[in-house]
Amino acid sequence: MSVAPPPKSTANETTHPFDDAIALTPLPGGHWRGRTSADYRNMVGPFGGITAAVVLNAVLLHPQRLGDPVALTVNYAGPITDGEFTIEVEVFRTNRATQHWILRLVQGDDRTPALSATAVTALRRQAWSGPELGMPAVPSADSLPRAAIDLAGVPWTARYDMRFVRGALSLDPQAPASPDSATEVWMRDQPPRPLDLASLCAMCDGFFPRIFLRRPGFVPAGTVSMTVYFHADAAALAAQHDAAVLGTARAQVFAQGFFDQTAQVWGKDGALLATTHQIVYYKE
Amino acid sequence: MSVAPPPKSTANETTHPFDDAIALTPLPGGHWRGRTSADYRNMVGPFGGITAAVVLNAVLLHPQRLGDPVALTVNYAGPITDGEFTIEVEVFRTNRATQHWILRLVQGDDRTPALSATAVTALRRQAWSGPELGMPAVPSADSLPRAAIDLAGVPWTARYDMRFVRGALSLDPQAPASPDSATEVWMRDQPPRPLDLASLCAMCDGFFPRIFLRRPGFVPAGTVSMTVYFHADAAALAAQHDAAVLGTARAQVFAQGFFDQTAQVWGKDGALLATTHQIVYYKE
Repeated sequence: MSVAPPPKSTANETTHPFDDAIALTPLPGGHWRGRTSADYRNMVGPFGGITAAVVLNAVLLHPQRLGDPVALTVNYAGPITDGEFTIEVEVFRTNRATQHWILRLVQGDDRTPALSATAVTALRRQAWSGPELGMPAVPSADSLPRAAIDLAGVPWTARYDMRFVRGALSLDPQAPASPDSATEVWMRDQPPRPLDLASLCAMCDGFFPRIFLRRPGFVPAGTVSMTVYFHADAAALAAQHDAAVLGTARAQVFAQGFFDQTAQVWGKDGALLATTHQIVYYKE
Repeated sequence: MSVAPPPKSTANETTHPFDDAIALTPLPGGHWRGRTSADYRNMVGPFGGITAAVVLNAVLLHPQRLGDPVALTVNYAGPITDGEFTIEVEVFRTNRATQHWILRLVQGDDRTPALSATAVTALRRQAWSGPELGMPAVPSADSLPRAAIDLAGVPWTARYDMRFVRGALSLDPQAPASPDSATEVWMRDQPPRPLDLASLCAMCDGFFPRIFLRRPGFVPAGTVSMTVYFHADAAALAAQHDAAVLGTARAQVFAQGFFDQTAQVWGKDGALLATTHQIVYYKE
């Protein structure tokens, strides 16, 4: 495979394409106006990770926000067409230390529904903490070649530096089927950008569909619902700088047109930054 | 530990307590009226699993429903007080094969917010299917003793027959800390009841807080958000009859007052019926 030419960027010269893609303008009532980015386009509509990130950003920027994100669930309900969209934000309930959000992404004057979401933010506290799952022992990102992914019409893949340890993407229908759907991959924004909650959120959807490993060749597939649990606050992510994070992902079952994916994103010193799950439609 | 006397049931004689607890009466606008059940009370408010099940039931009973549940996320936003509640249902978007739902559980004339949720239902199709994760090899439920859980003021635990293979509940602060938070437990409604989507949903929250294994003794903890992915349709669950299902659960990380739990529920012949995740508040 060869590296595709970089897509034409819509970002201005002083802004990273990621920041441009998640930019929001305030609307009355705590709502936000955003627009799709050519840089993060997927085959049909935007990369799901960038959409999750812009929805999270509507919470992050909200003047009434309490604490940092703990949980985000996004449901990809319908197509998002190129252009402007509105993120409608509802502060459902605010407690002393936690806050609950309901969000909708809609388009057009008729508010065509495209995505629903819920989020929880919370004040984190000092408490006994401990790892449970350990980061797998893998070669460093520097010691691995950057994956050369040439997917015509899928610009977002060029926005990530991906280095596969295991379970690399192959769309060759003649490739042998993998006995499992496990992937281990180092991920980093391209160009590099300091990690934050929004970019971590986007990377949680950076794994290609697990069915591609079990059924070699291209299989139509798309995320229906994704949940991200954040285990690091903004300060811990800032300490990560722009170093690559390790993503580990696998499916647990493929059944009747839907498979699940359970995944982890690991940072420096083996810290588990996020755990994430999704249910994915496939047609095979 | 000794077995607590069964709590006084509010169910009538012809209805299983579970069915009584998830019963709903239609209200105008596709909304529903329910009420809390003494049988499934937790220390404070209802068992989270029964609340998830009654919210799912609001979708299952809805006249506009398309297909079977694929995903449910419930966010426990605030306390639920004993008595009546309203489940407000919004059909966010209906596609050809999938449908997206937004739900709220509120109480009182001022609609005090208690829970937000999203659900996805879908028409399942014939497609290549395959397991990925295998059910662990464990002794049969019949070969294990029923756990004698005597939790004063926690009636819901008496509503399940639980047989622990590994990682049993202990609230003894002198117990040795477990090196991990893994539990394997056979679960069945008590009295027995044929498995269906609602009871499977409730069992997904049937695991005690994982922190109890890592930090022996009682630690205040409560689920903040739970997601369930359903991998079996109503017909496949009916074939399960009232046999015990195997639940497997563990945390991946404990950090700053929140830990996650990732879990599976297995049925006959090792079929993975549901995978489920939650993020849990703890104070330690």
